[in-house]
Amino acid sequence: MTQKAWGGRFAEATDARVEDFTASIDIDRRLARQDIRASQAHARMLAAVGLLTAAEAEQLCATLEEIGTEIQAGRFPFRADLEDIHTHVERALIDRLGDLGRKLHTGRSRNDQVATDLKLWVRDATDELDEAVADLQRAFLRLARREQDVVMPGYTHLQRAQPVLAAHVCLAYVEKLQRDRRRLADGRARLNELPLGAAALAGTSLPLDRHHVAQQLGFDRIASNSLDAASDRDFAVEFVFTLTLLALHLSGWAEEWVLWSTLEFGFLDLPDSFCTGSSIMPHKKNPDVLELIRGKSASVAGALQQLLMLIKGLPLAYNRDLQEDKRPVFAAFDTVLACVRMAAPLIDQSRLRRAAIAERLEQGHLDATTLMERLVVGGLPLRSAHEAVGRLVRAAEQRRCRLADLPAEWFETIQPGLAAQLDGLLGVQNAVAAFRTAGSTAPAEVEKQLTAWETRLA
Amino acid sequence: MTQKAWGGRFAEATDARVEDFTASIDIDRRLARQDIRASQAHARMLAAVGLLTAAEAEQLCATLEEIGTEIQAGRFPFRADLEDIHTHVERALIDRLGDLGRKLHTGRSRNDQVATDLKLWVRDATDELDEAVADLQRAFLRLARREQDVVMPGYTHLQRAQPVLAAHVCLAYVEKLQRDRRRLADGRARLNELPLGAAALAGTSLPLDRHHVAQQLGFDRIASNSLDAASDRDFAVEFVFTLTLLALHLSGWAEEWVLWSTLEFGFLDLPDSFCTGSSIMPHKKNPDVLELIRGKSASVAGALQQLLMLIKGLPLAYNRDLQEDKRPVFAAFDTVLACVRMAAPLIDQSRLRRAAIAERLEQGHLDATTLMERLVVGGLPLRSAHEAVGRLVRAAEQRRCRLADLPAEWFETIQPGLAAQLDGLLGVQNAVAAFRTAGSTAPAEVEKQLTAWETRLA
Amino acid sequence: MTQKAWGGRFAEATDARVEDFTASIDIDRRLARQDIRASQAHARMLAAVGLLTAAEAEQLCATLEEIGTEIQAGRFPFRADLEDIHTHVERALIDRLGDLGRKLHTGRSRNDQVATDLKLWVRDATDELDEAVADLQRAFLRLARREQDVVMPGYTHLQRAQPVLAAHVCLAYVEKLQRDRRRLADGRARLNELPLGAAALAGTSLPLDRHHVAQQLGFDRIASNSLDAASDRDFAVEFVFTLTLLALHLSGWAEEWVLWSTLEFGFLDLPDSFCTGSSIMPHKKNPDVLELIRGKSASVAGALQQLLMLIKGLPLAYNRDLQEDKRPVFAAFDTVLACVRMAAPLIDQSRLRRAAIAERLEQGHLDATTLMERLVVGGLPLRSAHEAVGRLVRAAEQRRCRLADLPAEWFETIQPGLAAQLDGLLGVQNAVAAFRTAGSTAPAEVEKQLTAWETRLA
Amino acid sequence: MTQKAWGGRFAEATDARVEDFTASIDIDRRLARQDIRASQAHARMLAAVGLLTAAEAEQLCATLEEIGTEIQAGRFPFRADLEDIHTHVERALIDRLGDLGRKLHTGRSRNDQVATDLKLWVRDATDELDEAVADLQRAFLRLARREQDVVMPGYTHLQRAQPVLAAHVCLAYVEKLQRDRRRLADGRARLNELPLGAAALAGTSLPLDRHHVAQQLGFDRIASNSLDAASDRDFAVEFVFTLTLLALHLSGWAEEWVLWSTLEFGFLDLPDSFCTGSSIMPHKKNPDVLELIRGKSASVAGALQQLLMLIKGLPLAYNRDLQEDKRPVFAAFDTVLACVRMAAPLIDQSRLRRAAIAERLEQGHLDATTLMERLVVGGLPLRSAHEAVGRLVRAAEQRRCRLADLPAEWFETIQPGLAAQLDGLLGVQNAVAAFRTAGSTAPAEVEKQLTAWETRLA
Repeated sequence: MTQKAWGGRFAEATDARVEDFTASIDIDRRLARQDIRASQAHARMLAAVGLLTAAEAEQLCATLEEIGTEIQAGRFPFRADLEDIHTHVERALIDRLGDLGRKLHTGRSRNDQVATDLKLWVRDATDELDEAVADLQRAFLRLARREQDVVMPGYTHLQRAQPVLAAHVCLAYVEKLQRDRRRLADGRARLNELPLGAAALAGTSLPLDRHHVAQQLGFDRIASNSLDAASDRDFAVEFVFTLTLLALHLSGWAEEWVLWSTLEFGFLDLPDSFCTGSSIMPHKKNPDVLELIRGKSASVAGALQQLLMLIKGLPLAYNRDLQEDKRPVFAAFDTVLACVRMAAPLIDQSRLRRAAIAERLEQGHLDATTLMERLVVGGLPLRSAHEAVGRLVRAAEQRRCRLADLPAEWFETIQPGLAAQLDGLLGVQNAVAAFRTAGSTAPAEVEKQLTAWETRLA
Repeated sequence: MTQKAWGGRFAEATDARVEDFTASIDIDRRLARQDIRASQAHARMLAAVGLLTAAEAEQLCATLEEIGTEIQAGRFPFRADLEDIHTHVERALIDRLGDLGRKLHTGRSRNDQVATDLKLWVRDATDELDEAVADLQRAFLRLARREQDVVMPGYTHLQRAQPVLAAHVCLAYVEKLQRDRRRLADGRARLNELPLGAAALAGTSLPLDRHHVAQQLGFDRIASNSLDAASDRDFAVEFVFTLTLLALHLSGWAEEWVLWSTLEFGFLDLPDSFCTGSSIMPHKKNPDVLELIRGKSASVAGALQQLLMLIKGLPLAYNRDLQEDKRPVFAAFDTVLACVRMAAPLIDQSRLRRAAIAERLEQGHLDATTLMERLVVGGLPLRSAHEAVGRLVRAAEQRRCRLADLPAEWFETIQPGLAAQLDGLLGVQNAVAAFRTAGSTAPAEVEKQLTAWETRLA
Repeated sequence: MTQKAWGGRFAEATDARVEDFTASIDIDRRLARQDIRASQAHARMLAAVGLLTAAEAEQLCATLEEIGTEIQAGRFPFRADLEDIHTHVERALIDRLGDLGRKLHTGRSRNDQVATDLKLWVRDATDELDEAVADLQRAFLRLARREQDVVMPGYTHLQRAQPVLAAHVCLAYVEKLQRDRRRLADGRARLNELPLGAAALAGTSLPLDRHHVAQQLGFDRIASNSLDAASDRDFAVEFVFTLTLLALHLSGWAEEWVLWSTLEFGFLDLPDSFCTGSSIMPHKKNPDVLELIRGKSASVAGALQQLLMLIKGLPLAYNRDLQEDKRPVFAAFDTVLACVRMAAPLIDQSRLRRAAIAERLEQGHLDATTLMERLVVGGLPLRSAHEAVGRLVRAAEQRRCRLADLPAEWFETIQPGLAAQLDGLLGVQNAVAAFRTAGSTAPAEVEKQLTAWETRLA
Repeated sequence: MTQKAWGGRFAEATDARVEDFTASIDIDRRLARQDIRASQAHARMLAAVGLLTAAEAEQLCATLEEIGTEIQAGRFPFRADLEDIHTHVERALIDRLGDLGRKLHTGRSRNDQVATDLKLWVRDATDELDEAVADLQRAFLRLARREQDVVMPGYTHLQRAQPVLAAHVCLAYVEKLQRDRRRLADGRARLNELPLGAAALAGTSLPLDRHHVAQQLGFDRIASNSLDAASDRDFAVEFVFTLTLLALHLSGWAEEWVLWSTLEFGFLDLPDSFCTGSSIMPHKKNPDVLELIRGKSASVAGALQQLLMLIKGLPLAYNRDLQEDKRPVFAAFDTVLACVRMAAPLIDQSRLRRAAIAERLEQGHLDATTLMERLVVGGLPLRSAHEAVGRLVRAAEQRRCRLADLPAEWFETIQPGLAAQLDGLLGVQNAVAAFRTAGSTAPAEVEKQLTAWETRLA
């Protein structure tokens, strides 16, 4: 008799090459824990509705537990001809319990089973990642506190724009990561409905109690339509999308820090222990971890693209194409979790090069906008003030000097009384101190935000 | 004096080729309504904090209204050298109001302005699309009601699996669309924080009241970090992701209906008015609308890919690359909205070919699983019952007959007493009637779901 | 002393987490054979230019051979702290040969080394895949010969269009695969220039003879610019693009055969040994291999997308992001090779269901276009003939009959004399026999093409 | 009577919304020139085989010419209900020539017609782009010649690595672009086989001479299989892939120049006429053109993704999904051509800031590798020399000095006699002069390459 979960109808055995090609056990063994958990819940429900005795259910649960332990311990043998984790577990049950093992699959299909397992896995992964991202946010907060008073150039178009506090930069990434966490939470809430009980595609004639299973497994509700439940992979795609956006946030941060750690910027000292060298150039110290975090975002986006293309144009309900959903989900999660976990200690061990930052801080006219805004307060229309300061900048560029080095009477010409205010107006420190708006880099605003985040993530 | 929003600092005029290459006005003119609305709110806030008089603010608002009306009416001239919608509107203000026009941009940058405009646009687009998707759900509900009692083959792997009610199939799509609507709602809630006031990247030294603007524009809160606010495009990417998943749901439905309208399936009559013919083959009637809905999903996924790649590796804060965000957002929205709006009337005018469906309904052993489940109820372990029925199917295949046509004693051998039950057990109508689980295709379950949805979407 | 290929400059050891995160040995060990080969060529060249003695070179080559053999045999230990395959091999050399081992890397960087290894690997992979695709073409040719005289419906828009020979359908796929093979060949020719000697990015002050190495390794020429050679990954991306298009060709074929093997089409018998069943539905026989071939195309396209995003916006020359290039290349190749190799035996064991095809062949008016073309030959303008036949089709649809079943006088009205020709004109067999153009499905044309291909691929 | 190219079979008119949704005329009108050209060739062939008289063919050709002229001049009215460019042209012919116009479509389908038109278009586009890329290569050569003697830091991991000539950097991009041109040429050669004559999918019963048409239109051969010809879009996908890789090459260059034009690097002066300013920050001068070139690469990759997903899983032969192929092809081409054409004048007007480059050139130990290689020539094994120099670098870092500033006896300890050589060895100028290998940045090598390219592209 066949070892497969089917076969009565087949006249020929499966070609061995086909077994290798179609087997998913090398991938979906990762669902073992979830598969066991869901099977235990299913068994208990079968007893509750009378399709098993209580004793049978308990024996099934205990043996499932035993199998699960062996799998976790690496003592369980996997074989391509047993296709997938579901068949492996069922076959082991039958080997150990005989006919009782043959009863577990009652009212269930691998279609609803794998959807349930994968949802449980994504739920677990979501929780694990959320905590890691929170840790990364905390690392940014520590850095913000450590370097709170450092003023650095802020950039647009990678050209020096206005001065910002280092802490303000850190908090920008905390905000982005918070949106990622909210997306994780939304996806988790959305996926939390139970597919099991959809059976193959249409439900079953057996009197299953799906709410019983949902409650055991922590699902908020049952999926309302069996055809949808058996075919839905939204939750996997949405999870990988959220991972992609998170990876892209990290890629932007990594790019920024790669720049900061160049000789030319010179803003950042990376720890030796987080860099590597060159096999030919003895003087090199390379920001490999940052480069890899940047580069790995591409693999996460590739996984998303795979999933999107995978589900395109598939009719209802389950199609075998969907077997290909797990590898990109697992790979994207592993990649992003590893990046998030590398980022936190890297941040903790990195130091801003305060002297180097300060040395060139007055370059680039970071105070020009502040000057312009003073003109506005003094009554000049914004657009006219912009034009006037623009001309001053052009002159300063030609003379290769700061705005503060230009003749005072030039300022007076633009707005009478201005020359007397320049000491408290020009220069980067004045510019930083001048900020006022909510959410700006004004020191008091940044302190407020920082404290709020520290409280929130304590 | 330059017509641009900058220029004082520049010694040379912009190259005309560069103006063409960098201008976004052919795209972002679509933000005109949002730009006007946000500028009016900004002007009123400037008055509230004393940077304008009340009269000035009112004059700005009135003239902005006038400009907006001209744009909507197509009477407003656009020019590449004025770069974008923001500059066009400001230039028109200056032309009409002189120095007062020069004041509007006080405390504002195009960076926070465009983020605000685009968020307003996405918010509007979300609402418009949500209503269209609800209409499409209603079309599926009407179809479900119209064809409620039609039993058809359900498929897995595109092989006949178990019988399902046509209404159950319709409701599967209603569920998928409902998840799309929930994603739209989550994205809308997440984006609803105001960027304006972030200025270029760091806030401003002017005493703006961002909450005043947020309240006017219906934002729930202000963005907390100016660097984040100026660089964030999560909301656009998330919107296009949601559009992509929606488009892919439609692609699966379109594939299914393309199949149903083949001569071979023969399940569906599409209206002549929704099909086109061939320039060479006079007999052809092609399901073009469905094929295009399927194919257009690729362009939405392409837009998502563009956005993901666009933001990869960008350091803080604004980079000009981000100008490329609008085209894919607009294109993806237009495409999906058009598909959703085509789908609804197509569904309303299509008819199931009941006779053709019924004619071959007993082919494919759609009752095999029901039989197996009866064996389970009779005490046979599921896996043994599966094996036994599998052998019956193999025999029926060889004889090219239905299960019901096999000798009754074969059934009796498997489980004593079974032969007597066959009349109420075999055959597709019996199989449908046998379903019991919540969410299954059982007629009572389907009726319950259908009624619930009708109430919900009334 | 450090085991790494660098380290003199570093004050701290690498963090163990960083070693795990940055190590590529689990992936690039697959380059072992190419790495050994390239190192042997490098050693011989070093001897040729006097940087090693001939005896030293021979000793290096012999020990490299030994290491290579151990790796192939699985007896070589790999460790994350030795980073990559290059360092593993060099470290093993040093362990066995001392200072002589320390000389191998002379004038070489891992940057040019890995580019060389990967090019050699892609070259080998190209050759292996090309042969497999040729085998698949031969399988299609065998099928074409086996089912040469079978007439089937040809489709556009998945609606029956005109009759085609089964062999003609097979040859369409042979053509597509031939373009894939040409792309493989073009890519192979383009990549065949040697990076080695580019060193880290700028060449070297040592008197290397790059042509000597190129000749040994079968490269057609040396890369002309060291910065380009160290940064170029075009060859990898182009290879994966070619794989993607090939995978998509297979996806189209798989879709077609999934359709053909439905109960509704009923054109194809797949071998039991290439199908699998259902865990719940005992009657199911599913075309899993075809579905997986279709679905796996998505993973290949995902790999391409990863590579494209990976290289976006990278400045010269080598950046660590590029380490991420190998996994998608290997994965895409493995996937496509497996699909190609599954397709050939599946085709060999599949059979057209001739009776089922023939039974419905006269449905769908496959002869309508032939009739129209006869009207054109008889002098009617094409567009008028189209209109006239279209009206006949409409009438036949209403009567649910064939064109041949319509009253003969209707034909006579359209074109006098036509009624007498109908016997040799209408019906599918007549329609097939009527084709005349080069490249058409005319039996003689198909025979000509088939013979030509058989000769070409013998 | 209907204005459409079909309709006899249809009982209802097309819904107006469907006409809008399915019409492609707003996109494919761009094929007008190719459509006219192909129709003229088709008409002449019809005369050659006797399906038209010579006079008829000439009249058709003349009227087609007239229609083409009107379209080019913008005097031709387009309407959604006439679907596409093919129908517009045919309808105009019929309006002007009556029954003769009705004859043009003889033996032809829009399926083979559009494939032919699009191939002609891609062929023209390929030629146009190739010339533009050659112009861009020439701009890089002019820059190389202009700045030939400038020595700058070369980078790996964005860390200073070894010195390179500015001309060497330019030539790296010339090489990359040359591979793009070769891919364009390969694609052009591959696509150059005629689809026309494939008719709808199976060929035709009319005695067309496809070789006659191929010759007229400059195709090298005819497509051998009609099903393949009607369904093949490889040429479009391959073209967009080649565009994508080209766009990514430009993105890397743009990134590099964005970095060079920062205040921190300070290597490059961009012309004012190629930069823009800020609406709020009067001092800003932003490298917008470069940023947009970088960002626009994402839209090209998005177009590729769209095409790949579009063709996934489509069965033979033509499916309406394929109508969506043209927009991404046109958009990707327009984008890349615009970027290529912007890059050339930008390069011509940009200037290296030689003083700024020179000022910091001795920073970063660009001579360390040269020193190491001298030790190798002196007999030290490479890996030992690497270690020794690494320690010197560490010492120099701690003292914040150059290698040349370290005590001479330290060098002597490493290798006796070394101290005496340091003057001609250390320092960036010595390091550049020391390079020897083919393809390296050695001045003589660079001169050789530059001359060769100048000759080649003259």
